[in-house]
Amino acid sequence: MSTVKPAPDLEADPRVKAVFDDIRATRKSDFINNMWLYLAFDPALLESTWRDVKAIMATPSVLDPLVKEMLYIAVSATNGCSYCVHSHTAAAKAKGMTEAQHAELLSIISLAARTNQLATALQVPVDGVFDADRN
Amino acid sequence: MSTVKPAPDLEADPRVKAVFDDIRATRKSDFINNMWLYLAFDPALLESTWRDVKAIMATPSVLDPLVKEMLYIAVSATNGCSYCVHSHTAAAKAKGMTEAQHAELLSIISLAARTNQLATALQVPVDGVFDADRN
Amino acid sequence: MSTVKPAPDLEADPRVKAVFDDIRATRKSDFINNMWLYLAFDPALLESTWRDVKAIMATPSVLDPLVKEMLYIAVSATNGCSYCVHSHTAAAKAKGMTEAQHAELLSIISLAARTNQLATALQVPVDGVFDADRN
Amino acid sequence: MSTVKPAPDLEADPRVKAVFDDIRATRKSDFINNMWLYLAFDPALLESTWRDVKAIMATPSVLDPLVKEMLYIAVSATNGCSYCVHSHTAAAKAKGMTEAQHAELLSIISLAARTNQLATALQVPVDGVFDADRN
Amino acid sequence: MSTVKPAPDLEADPRVKAVFDDIRATRKSDFINNMWLYLAFDPALLESTWRDVKAIMATPSVLDPLVKEMLYIAVSATNGCSYCVHSHTAAAKAKGMTEAQHAELLSIISLAARTNQLATALQVPVDGVFDADRN
Amino acid sequence: MSTVKPAPDLEADPRVKAVFDDIRATRKSDFINNMWLYLAFDPALLESTWRDVKAIMATPSVLDPLVKEMLYIAVSATNGCSYCVHSHTAAAKAKGMTEAQHAELLSIISLAARTNQLATALQVPVDGVFDADRN
Repeated sequence: MSTVKPAPDLEADPRVKAVFDDIRATRKSDFINNMWLYLAFDPALLESTWRDVKAIMATPSVLDPLVKEMLYIAVSATNGCSYCVHSHTAAAKAKGMTEAQHAELLSIISLAARTNQLATALQVPVDGVFDADRN
Repeated sequence: MSTVKPAPDLEADPRVKAVFDDIRATRKSDFINNMWLYLAFDPALLESTWRDVKAIMATPSVLDPLVKEMLYIAVSATNGCSYCVHSHTAAAKAKGMTEAQHAELLSIISLAARTNQLATALQVPVDGVFDADRN
Repeated sequence: MSTVKPAPDLEADPRVKAVFDDIRATRKSDFINNMWLYLAFDPALLESTWRDVKAIMATPSVLDPLVKEMLYIAVSATNGCSYCVHSHTAAAKAKGMTEAQHAELLSIISLAARTNQLATALQVPVDGVFDADRN
Repeated sequence: MSTVKPAPDLEADPRVKAVFDDIRATRKSDFINNMWLYLAFDPALLESTWRDVKAIMATPSVLDPLVKEMLYIAVSATNGCSYCVHSHTAAAKAKGMTEAQHAELLSIISLAARTNQLATALQVPVDGVFDADRN
Repeated sequence: MSTVKPAPDLEADPRVKAVFDDIRATRKSDFINNMWLYLAFDPALLESTWRDVKAIMATPSVLDPLVKEMLYIAVSATNGCSYCVHSHTAAAKAKGMTEAQHAELLSIISLAARTNQLATALQVPVDGVFDADRN
Repeated sequence: MSTVKPAPDLEADPRVKAVFDDIRATRKSDFINNMWLYLAFDPALLESTWRDVKAIMATPSVLDPLVKEMLYIAVSATNGCSYCVHSHTAAAKAKGMTEAQHAELLSIISLAARTNQLATALQVPVDGVFDADRN
């Protein structure tokens, strides 16, 4: 179930085709996952989303590619985005995430959720030393 | 402002003192941040929280200590926990997070928040290949 | 799957029937969507919920009916409520939301999610000029 | 800092005065907390909010008044609503919440946040026996 | 669909078997729900999660067992955790939650979500009297 | 308090100056709000964020500028982003939002938060007619 319906021949639109071709080339795979098929109902939205995902997630940078996927999972699980948890866990595994790393990721993000809840329920005042403006 | 008030002499309670001593020894610092001062209103809650934070965040493991702090920041920012964002950003900097790493962390977690919102608003169906039960 | 089970003949209860009749009359349609069928396990909860949905969403007011549905989608997607995203996207389309408007709605709510994440991760101090108490 | 500014003489408006009088009578106290002072910028919004808070929170019902406040805190902390955490923790204490009950409340809601995160990150399938529709 | 796949013979691992045996003994039931089957991919994570769930939820304490389940539901619904809403609503019913209690729970947690939203959108300043640090 | 500290002379960096100049020109105002001052610790992040905010929020499009600000407020309040609620409420008022429109916005977004909570707690199944894939 979804809130938009992909057109029967998405790639008849040259803007959609150009993005899909770039996804295939970047990932070295013919597979286009549903996120892009559904975003294609609006070529401009598809283009701007892919532009940024490619720039941030598929371009060498200061953080390790697997770390980037784990950060993505952390946010996606916290936001309760089922699709994103699935797609980025699959991506992290494809980039070599072991079961031990997966388990540790889960330990950390569930610990964070727990202490976030405690700090908020206690309304703990922020320590002055943590303020970057002060230093 | 907070919802509990730390006792004037917290360490008069031996259970609290034992936890605080362990925090100081583990971190090699005399500083005890507010989270622990406020949790100390209930020694059992203080003990169980510190036990798990120590085991997961302050014990060598398969993930790098800085990566663990960045994952903590990712969850804390997504949950909107001001205290936790401050304390774990300070911790990440203390573990060597550079400005470039910090900026990239922000790029990734804000991109994730954006595509989480898109996937949820579109209700994109999960691709079958992402299902671990299937494989 | 759900956490309550609708009774086999919901409208045997006159309070439920009265609400359902008002839903049909207000919407000029015989269709009652699942939200109301499941809320009917408690007639008082059904009545108070419908009373407010009708007053706020189905009564002419200062905001345009389509704008109201788009605001509902914005909150529902942010809260990750799958049911609500589906039902209010369908309602927005029924009120004339075009594909271009839908795409722009998605652009805005995903941009907001992204900058929310940035502002929270940076803990940006609120500018004094934004304070209504001051003016 | 706030996004609206209370008028200098709020109770000059008879609708506002009527609500404030009812708050005072219901709570047997002259104190009106900020939530109501700021909601008063729109008398209709003030009236409908107070009507429901009074009906649900200040009227004898099947749940104990203290339990109701603890449920309110649970939701408010999870939503990260600082104002609501403060006001409902104060209300719970006024209704007799002990430090031991407060600590246990925090233990439960932080445990729930943690296992919520685990279940979402694992995307655990719902067991068939939990489905009320099936039974 | 899930992000990990339970091994075919989970209880071949003695650590997993020990936890499952304790779950069965504690709950006086042979049924092991999916949460534990999926957590078992990492015995240490399974052990630490069950240890805390047992200590907090399945051990007599100052709060009533049904109240504890209702608090769990409140957090789980707010976090949008479908699995947790299902499992803890089933647990609450098993502990005697009536339809009237269930309906009142829903009234309270949905009222809280609504006033949380109002307080946040208004950015209502916290009243000084709510500050525990002050008293 | 914040997690980064703006440099004393931000506009000494030509990339930062170029963005700030464009913000001033676009908004026809000399005022640069804190969001941009703090984002400037990383010129690339500043540039990409402003590029998208300008394209989506400050460029004529199919939705009315005031409606766009109200959608931004809806998401920001739901995410609990204090800074964003303040800045976009100020922006909405600058674009002509009346008190009546503001009050109605609050009514809708708080109603949505409430029914989101109900739908999630009930786990209401999505009606088949809402599925865009089906039609």
